[in-house]
Amino acid sequence: MQWVKVLGGLVGASALLGLGIILGHFAIPKGADAPAPGVSVSQDLDLEILESVMKQLDASKIRENLRELSREPHLASSPRDEALAQLLLQRWRDPESGLDAAEAPTYEVLLSFPSREQPNRVAVVGPTGTVLFSCRQSEQNLTGEQGGPDVVPPYAAYAPPGTPQAVNAAKHGVAGVLVYTDPADINDGHSSASQTFPNSWRLPPSGVERGSYYEYFGDPLTPYLPANPSSFRLNPDTVPGFPPIPTQPIGFEDAKILLCNLQGTLAPAAWQGALGCDYKLGPGFRPDGDFPADSQVNVSVHNRLELRNSSNVLGIIRGAVEPDRYVLYGNHRDSWVHGAVDPSSGTAVLLELSRVLGTLLKKGTWRPRRSIVFASWGAEEFGLIGSTEFTEEFFSKLQERTVAYINVDISVFANATLRAQGTPPVQSVIFSAAKQIPAPGLDGLSIYDNWIRYFNRSSTAYGLVPSLGSLGAGSDYAPFIHFLGISSMDIAYTYDRSKTSARIYPTYHTAFDTFGYVDKFVDPGFSSHQAVARTAGSVLLRLSDSLFLPLNVSDYGETLRNFLQAAQRDLGVLLEQHSISLGPLVTAVEKFEGAAAALGQRVSALQKDTPDPLQVRMLNDQLMLLERTFLNPRAFPEERYYSHVLWAPRTGSVATFPGLANACSRAMNTSLGSAAWAEVQRQLSILVVALEGAAATLRPVADL
Amino acid sequence: MQWVKVLGGLVGASALLGLGIILGHFAIPKGADAPAPGVSVSQDLDLEILESVMKQLDASKIRENLRELSREPHLASSPRDEALAQLLLQRWRDPESGLDAAEAPTYEVLLSFPSREQPNRVAVVGPTGTVLFSCRQSEQNLTGEQGGPDVVPPYAAYAPPGTPQAVNAAKHGVAGVLVYTDPADINDGHSSASQTFPNSWRLPPSGVERGSYYEYFGDPLTPYLPANPSSFRLNPDTVPGFPPIPTQPIGFEDAKILLCNLQGTLAPAAWQGALGCDYKLGPGFRPDGDFPADSQVNVSVHNRLELRNSSNVLGIIRGAVEPDRYVLYGNHRDSWVHGAVDPSSGTAVLLELSRVLGTLLKKGTWRPRRSIVFASWGAEEFGLIGSTEFTEEFFSKLQERTVAYINVDISVFANATLRAQGTPPVQSVIFSAAKQIPAPGLDGLSIYDNWIRYFNRSSTAYGLVPSLGSLGAGSDYAPFIHFLGISSMDIAYTYDRSKTSARIYPTYHTAFDTFGYVDKFVDPGFSSHQAVARTAGSVLLRLSDSLFLPLNVSDYGETLRNFLQAAQRDLGVLLEQHSISLGPLVTAVEKFEGAAAALGQRVSALQKDTPDPLQVRMLNDQLMLLERTFLNPRAFPEERYYSHVLWAPRTGSVATFPGLANACSRAMNTSLGSAAWAEVQRQLSILVVALEGAAATLRPVADL
Repeated sequence: MQWVKVLGGLVGASALLGLGIILGHFAIPKGADAPAPGVSVSQDLDLEILESVMKQLDASKIRENLRELSREPHLASSPRDEALAQLLLQRWRDPESGLDAAEAPTYEVLLSFPSREQPNRVAVVGPTGTVLFSCRQSEQNLTGEQGGPDVVPPYAAYAPPGTPQAVNAAKHGVAGVLVYTDPADINDGHSSASQTFPNSWRLPPSGVERGSYYEYFGDPLTPYLPANPSSFRLNPDTVPGFPPIPTQPIGFEDAKILLCNLQGTLAPAAWQGALGCDYKLGPGFRPDGDFPADSQVNVSVHNRLELRNSSNVLGIIRGAVEPDRYVLYGNHRDSWVHGAVDPSSGTAVLLELSRVLGTLLKKGTWRPRRSIVFASWGAEEFGLIGSTEFTEEFFSKLQERTVAYINVDISVFANATLRAQGTPPVQSVIFSAAKQIPAPGLDGLSIYDNWIRYFNRSSTAYGLVPSLGSLGAGSDYAPFIHFLGISSMDIAYTYDRSKTSARIYPTYHTAFDTFGYVDKFVDPGFSSHQAVARTAGSVLLRLSDSLFLPLNVSDYGETLRNFLQAAQRDLGVLLEQHSISLGPLVTAVEKFEGAAAALGQRVSALQKDTPDPLQVRMLNDQLMLLERTFLNPRAFPEERYYSHVLWAPRTGSVATFPGLANACSRAMNTSLGSAAWAEVQRQLSILVVALEGAAATLRPVADL
Repeated sequence: MQWVKVLGGLVGASALLGLGIILGHFAIPKGADAPAPGVSVSQDLDLEILESVMKQLDASKIRENLRELSREPHLASSPRDEALAQLLLQRWRDPESGLDAAEAPTYEVLLSFPSREQPNRVAVVGPTGTVLFSCRQSEQNLTGEQGGPDVVPPYAAYAPPGTPQAVNAAKHGVAGVLVYTDPADINDGHSSASQTFPNSWRLPPSGVERGSYYEYFGDPLTPYLPANPSSFRLNPDTVPGFPPIPTQPIGFEDAKILLCNLQGTLAPAAWQGALGCDYKLGPGFRPDGDFPADSQVNVSVHNRLELRNSSNVLGIIRGAVEPDRYVLYGNHRDSWVHGAVDPSSGTAVLLELSRVLGTLLKKGTWRPRRSIVFASWGAEEFGLIGSTEFTEEFFSKLQERTVAYINVDISVFANATLRAQGTPPVQSVIFSAAKQIPAPGLDGLSIYDNWIRYFNRSSTAYGLVPSLGSLGAGSDYAPFIHFLGISSMDIAYTYDRSKTSARIYPTYHTAFDTFGYVDKFVDPGFSSHQAVARTAGSVLLRLSDSLFLPLNVSDYGETLRNFLQAAQRDLGVLLEQHSISLGPLVTAVEKFEGAAAALGQRVSALQKDTPDPLQVRMLNDQLMLLERTFLNPRAFPEERYYSHVLWAPRTGSVATFPGLANACSRAMNTSLGSAAWAEVQRQLSILVVALEGAAATLRPVADL
């Protein structure tokens, strides 16, 4: 899991400040076609099979999977990462519990690694170059797992090499960036060794969060093209999206030494943290501190770009009736270090789910109506690379045939509640699944009942319901939803927010994210892992096996209505001042709602009937393809891959139409008749046309 | 019918010459969802119905249609154009012979008209402004039809207003452009009144070809957006693609006066024509000619841009089994003047075909398996506007569901032979139709047998076959193939090229393109019209009614192989010199051929069987959607709408991959490592990915 977009913003914001070396307290947010004879074309979801799958999903097997997956560090393209690809292949080719077919295609992608010979270094040096203090170059070996040769030292992937030195940089240029995670943001303020791992789930003082600092996603050298050996590649020296200056992450233990010795203006209150001193902005060290005032911070970054082979692993269960309809289920395989939580908690669930389904398949008990494709993506931590290259290579095939994409990356952040993100059509199927699975440790309460206690919203259609989050670009669902327009979701168990304000689990992307950490602190007993396996597994089976696709397109109407109301509230006056009417958008939303409701009624009517399989297929195609109608590859040419007019990145915090809102915020301070105001009108038209076009696809198919 | 691209090239080339006023001899080249109870899901093409339709298509009814359609001028958006829209609606709503539903949606589009108050004028003036000679402002009223108030005077649509005056313009600036059609190009050299219409089919001396001089297609103010009243519009003053300078077409009678009086260097041999003098380049008039040497040519253009409502008329016959699969059949309705040939010869056929099918429908004798949509497009002559706006408005719905688009614009250019253009998947269905229809006037010979005598090629798969032309952007198929990736075709009857070298029928876009012209010279008896109605009708029925779609995807393999061989022959050495290998392209073509052949075998196998309808639907989807896989909206960002990587405009004359060939011709004289050479590599990769992606969609659907 990684949060590309937010990181981009961080680096941008840092440069804006114009400081020499920024010692911020920002956290880096995480960031054979024919059916077998005898197959019924009316084959529908079998509730007994579903129940049996739910029962067979075994917490102890997930635990065993996790132990093996996280036994060694498995950085993207490393020998251990490739060994795990082989392990997955072997499981998926198992004659007793494997799938119909599996393979491990490879892309040649541009990754970034620190140098073994010249470790990255952060030091305070005196005026003659004497080293007065050095930051740690690796994390403290607390459990015997942090010291091995395969533990990659902390670094900022894709940050360029260089050796800036300054505490008092030129006002107009930032020489380098240091990043650390403040105990206020990750440890609820706690920072001592006794209060942190291995004594609690909290981040130890030496822990350093690794991450990719590339602004976009996908292989940096082959945008829109699969990174096959023969593909055209950009020149790495001029590729856009890499940080412009050397950047290095450090632990809060070291950050404290640097930050608490700064002089200068007091930083804003929101920038203060829990290092036990007042945070100041510099420039320079305070005269009464640990370092002479003429000391400087020297940062040596020796990262190198390397073309590496990275594998995806793909496995398929062929559909019995509609093999050309795919339900995709994926997670990445690569980690920064051992990655027990990220991503192996998800991979452990993936393997257990494929084992249970594979066993039913090999026994001849079951074959899904539609095809199921499992995927283990490579090089996600560097920027969703494996999944993005896959979507680039099979763009048409996937776009024509994919029912939905289910992503389970980190399956368990914490064990309080389910958390799901997705586009509106998947809400109902997640609810259906969650209602029928018991919440772990809460006798008699369903996952749904528990979920609604933690995340909820008031729906005009349904009253109080769990709230589904929206999809950013934090994991491999990004290319599926934003580039291909495939209805997507991400499912996990997560925190009780009343008990911690940690922005993510504390050992995220550090060498302390180990099996022991999960086993002892995150999910002892693995019942939350099992709950996620059951929820995602039930969603998968409902999508692959139901005669009528359980995608409720009416739920998009509610989202559109909410977006519209937000636009009217926040932008209405401004637009009116510029003689821009939201009237056509109101009409388009109404048309969508009307068409979606009528389609829902036709589905219900047909369900009561004995429909012929072609009639069902035609309706299902309308449901499946709705999400595609929101794509417009010409809407946001500057936003690589983002083509979905409803879910492109928004610069503001209000949940509304992104193109319109972004254009308004750019136009706001320009004059009437500016290009920026023309772009507002263009974005409004793009949106209206997309909604009207979507409504047209929902109407009876032979309406003019 | 109009040839946007060629015109653009003409204007561009003219500007390049740097002459003051160009008196060229260039020709402007011409360019309710549920099935009814009792419907069988295995419903297939009924050969008796087909035969009955062939018999009922009535030449005399086509003649009557044409008489009515061409009775008055019906320029786009004129009252008569709108009246014809109502006539079509009425026919398609006829209770005895109409369709299931019809409507006439309207777009608000930017057209260009000459001023009634200030007619455009071309004159030779003396140094004091005395008018020494004026070109005609309208054509001679030879048949009583050229004089009415609705005959729009000759003009160059979208040419800007202005009053340039020069014969001796600054070397670096062209002040204005005059265009005429030389008798050498249009009349096989003949130019006297006695040799031309109404005494023959040839162009009279006063005839002037109108046309649109807009570089792109679609409504100029709303690229990529439907021209609905609320849509965002570009500023007409800065819209790209209009001619930069005043432009006016004149007849060859007037061109002779201007051109034969020029002095200066003799124009190149290829520029000489049949006006009876040596063509010189100027500048200035010759001293021994009709005008004093200090005379100048004054061109006054008063064209005005106007937002006008233009209607499409759409009619549907709902499919009995697969109503969500559309076979589209269309032609434009608007003409420059009476437009008997262009476009009414096509509309007359369209109405006869819809009458025959509508009658079968209303009698309850027949309903197609798939839906048939008939379209009468508005404002084609101004740049394919009605059809383009339609594709913009219903992009997703059409792209998901359209089997093919059949265009019959001018149905009869001349009565010698069938001529068809299209993408490879439609070749076989046109052949099948043409083989079973008798060629008019050639006892015992089929249309196919006759066709192969005029246009043929040697196919590796089939031996000698009629050659299918490729689709440019000359008529309304352009947005369907280039923007939406829908397999498209254009069908007509045309010339015996051994009998005329006229680049198009001589009265093209003049006021002499009248019913009498068709009835007397183009197709007396209307048997060629009937032949086109039968051919296009048979193709339509085969596409709408066949259980297995008659789209032969293997035929794309032959095209790809030919393109590849041309690339190897023409570009291979150059690419090798720049270390660019065509190897990956060779592999991709081979993969395509292999996958297409294997799919063909699976279709054949299934045809022998009793396939279930879902199996057929899945195969048909593979066939239908193949063309879509060649679209890449990011391949040619500078070419508006063109997204098809195989049929985008080519700058060279060799039939090969356009993106690769164009990039090579731009890179040829640049240095190694230039951006232009990088673009060659990018284009090669785009092509390889498209072909590999296409092959992937043809493989068995559950292959990984």
